[in-house]
Amino acid sequence: MNAPAAPSHLLPTLALRPVPQGLLDALAQRFGPQCSTALAVREQHGRDEGSLQAPPPSAVVFAESTQDVQDAVRLAAQYDVPVIPYAAGSSLEGHLLAVQGGISIDVNRMNRVLSVDAEDLTVTVQPGITRKQLNDAIKDTGLFFPIDPGADASIGGMAATRASGTNAVRYGTMRENVLALEVVTARGDAIRTGTRAKKSSAGYDLTRLMVGSEGTLGIMTELTIRLYPLPEAISAAVCSFPSVGDAVRCTIQIIQLGVPIARVELIDANTVRAVNAHSKLNLREEAMLLMEFHGSPASVKEQAETVQELAAEHGGNAFEWASTPEERSRLWSARHMAYFAGLQTRPGCSAITTDACVPISQLATAVLESVQEAEASRIPYFMVGHVGDGNFHMGYLIDPGSSEERAAAEQLNHQLVARALRLGGTCTGEHGVGIHKMGFLLDEAGQGTVDMMRAIKQALDPKNILNPGKIFAL
Amino acid sequence: MNAPAAPSHLLPTLALRPVPQGLLDALAQRFGPQCSTALAVREQHGRDEGSLQAPPPSAVVFAESTQDVQDAVRLAAQYDVPVIPYAAGSSLEGHLLAVQGGISIDVNRMNRVLSVDAEDLTVTVQPGITRKQLNDAIKDTGLFFPIDPGADASIGGMAATRASGTNAVRYGTMRENVLALEVVTARGDAIRTGTRAKKSSAGYDLTRLMVGSEGTLGIMTELTIRLYPLPEAISAAVCSFPSVGDAVRCTIQIIQLGVPIARVELIDANTVRAVNAHSKLNLREEAMLLMEFHGSPASVKEQAETVQELAAEHGGNAFEWASTPEERSRLWSARHMAYFAGLQTRPGCSAITTDACVPISQLATAVLESVQEAEASRIPYFMVGHVGDGNFHMGYLIDPGSSEERAAAEQLNHQLVARALRLGGTCTGEHGVGIHKMGFLLDEAGQGTVDMMRAIKQALDPKNILNPGKIFAL
Repeated sequence: MNAPAAPSHLLPTLALRPVPQGLLDALAQRFGPQCSTALAVREQHGRDEGSLQAPPPSAVVFAESTQDVQDAVRLAAQYDVPVIPYAAGSSLEGHLLAVQGGISIDVNRMNRVLSVDAEDLTVTVQPGITRKQLNDAIKDTGLFFPIDPGADASIGGMAATRASGTNAVRYGTMRENVLALEVVTARGDAIRTGTRAKKSSAGYDLTRLMVGSEGTLGIMTELTIRLYPLPEAISAAVCSFPSVGDAVRCTIQIIQLGVPIARVELIDANTVRAVNAHSKLNLREEAMLLMEFHGSPASVKEQAETVQELAAEHGGNAFEWASTPEERSRLWSARHMAYFAGLQTRPGCSAITTDACVPISQLATAVLESVQEAEASRIPYFMVGHVGDGNFHMGYLIDPGSSEERAAAEQLNHQLVARALRLGGTCTGEHGVGIHKMGFLLDEAGQGTVDMMRAIKQALDPKNILNPGKIFAL
Repeated sequence: MNAPAAPSHLLPTLALRPVPQGLLDALAQRFGPQCSTALAVREQHGRDEGSLQAPPPSAVVFAESTQDVQDAVRLAAQYDVPVIPYAAGSSLEGHLLAVQGGISIDVNRMNRVLSVDAEDLTVTVQPGITRKQLNDAIKDTGLFFPIDPGADASIGGMAATRASGTNAVRYGTMRENVLALEVVTARGDAIRTGTRAKKSSAGYDLTRLMVGSEGTLGIMTELTIRLYPLPEAISAAVCSFPSVGDAVRCTIQIIQLGVPIARVELIDANTVRAVNAHSKLNLREEAMLLMEFHGSPASVKEQAETVQELAAEHGGNAFEWASTPEERSRLWSARHMAYFAGLQTRPGCSAITTDACVPISQLATAVLESVQEAEASRIPYFMVGHVGDGNFHMGYLIDPGSSEERAAAEQLNHQLVARALRLGGTCTGEHGVGIHKMGFLLDEAGQGTVDMMRAIKQALDPKNILNPGKIFAL
């Protein structure tokens, strides 16, 4: 038995299962130095970037091959012990927490590009490669992988949470961009789903079932994903607006007019202030849209003109353009720093982050009422959004030691999600359910639908060893 | 008991389950004139447009509401009797055959548009509406539903088989275009999957699991699907090529260059001859690409110029353009008639139709070797293809009474599929598995993957009443 003492911020769902010494011995024997039980290693693998905590896993296996993953799962299955896949550690909803105990399977060493099929615009990779590593590896092909959730997440983790982020408005999410998988099942078998063909009607879409299953149905060990030609022309712009409402209404029009914009990101005035402070920038401290246009030079020009006209109609001003890669990087690094810059406005705070996504016609209502409630609560907050998709994030900055602040922030989150659901939307556009949104999922999908998910889980993982206690209670 | 005598062309998988008189009485009582046991009605509902045959279902329920579907399923479940959803009847792989007996649930009367959300580019419909009915109903909105499998299929049936057809090269397949569903489960409960938000990470992607499940996991009773703005400009063209190989190589280049072509269809010389004879046209009797370009006037012009240059490089000639709706309809009705025109070249024949789809770089190999084998076999054939997606159909025209011809055609089909799988493709791009491709699915996906599908089926439909005997043996 190796379950450590429970820390102070325990989750209600915590129900640790025993990790017998026999398993730890068997892992040590099979994996030697590829297996660690050092506390620091285990603690690093027992958390993510969200604010929830649980005791760390009892061991970490550093898998270097599909066979390693299979063997680790088979040993764990033999002892009825949970396994939790781990790569970049950048998830936000408690996905990586060993809430039922268990072992972590770290796939960071499985980070190779297995084949680039440039003529078919596909690449096959191992799960531990990060999106930046991937784009670096293929930069000579003239192709790129566009999905960008902000963090330099692993491709496996992005698929597991059905991630998206900026660029999804044009290129889709992981749902649209994963073609085929190799997956290790709960029994330790390696199976394949999908093919490299662009479309298929060959039975159940197990690829899409695995994408977004958060490690609860299998562990991805190979992924074939889509690439895109680097656009001939790229242009980025920022534009300030008198209010969040103006920025959002401008976005709605851009989307409804069918402008094939590649990115359209909202950051609110709070966040602009935070980014200015954090990154030593002098951005105008108002709500702001950050945009990027991809295409032929003529198309980029046409898109930019349309958007400038729409922005003017909504009071947009201080349009700033960036065409060189360096200038674009500077603008976008501000967006990428928003989360950490926001956090640093209240030193020592934790962020409770929302992730609702609504039909585009409902975005103004969803955003403005949420802002109003946050202002009234006096909890400090920031807001960023992939608004072209109808997806936005409020970050409520709480004192992690204050249960009142946590409760107040969670109350705001509840109101925000309930509103999104009333408006025809979802509680999570891209972060996933993890532990934190299990209640929201039930509100959104209904008991019958969650029961169907649970039935699938029980059929594919009867011992409940694959990242248990996530998405729904089990 | 109501199982009729078995006809002569029985399938090896046929294992009729009893349909007790008690169920027929209960259906008659619940549904009155909405339930028929007339032989002609049952026979119409016991076949599709493929060449396989089985005894008809024992009764047909004409559902008019979700509640009707629920009640029919509940009664069938009570008696362990299979239910098979039916709409346009245009599937090709034996999907609608009552291979284990049972009752048909006809949803043609559930053909209403429930809500048009033009600002969000979505529409919610009942499953029985056909794609033409839908486009007619929304024609005043300036939007359209682009997916066009040729037949005027129902939206429910198209979702159930993960259909695509022409236009998918630009707009995607049913996989990409279904946002949310209401589904009646094996227990007769109605559940909802997905929302109207453009993206979501809310648990397992049950929407995509249902899309392509061929009625084996639930019966769709409402679908929310994506619409698109009618393009500002549309232009269509046909171009003849010295050989199928030249046409295919031209297509590969169009796709690899990233031309956002809306349709690119191949028909071979045999098919052009058949279409000419059938539709009294004078098309040049060579391999031909039919293309359509959507976009702004400038973009359509740019696309057309690029494609003309590429066609010239591959010996393309006799470019004929159609810009008016009437001319376009004439060109495309030729494509739409190809299947029936092909059939009529051999009166009384049946067609064994292939549906492989390969990565675009492998398309020339896949097509040319298949043509070579068909020529050598002396079985008459025609070929059409959604070649922009790497998907093509050979139709082998056999005498339905000749077991030698059937065997020879199936042998050609086997070779064609085996080749597609070697090339990284799939046995079915858009028709689905049904009965006919169960063996191919096993070859393609492997035993472990098909076992995973079967486990899901058993978990969601423990009595095996939802369109049993399709996709995999069970």
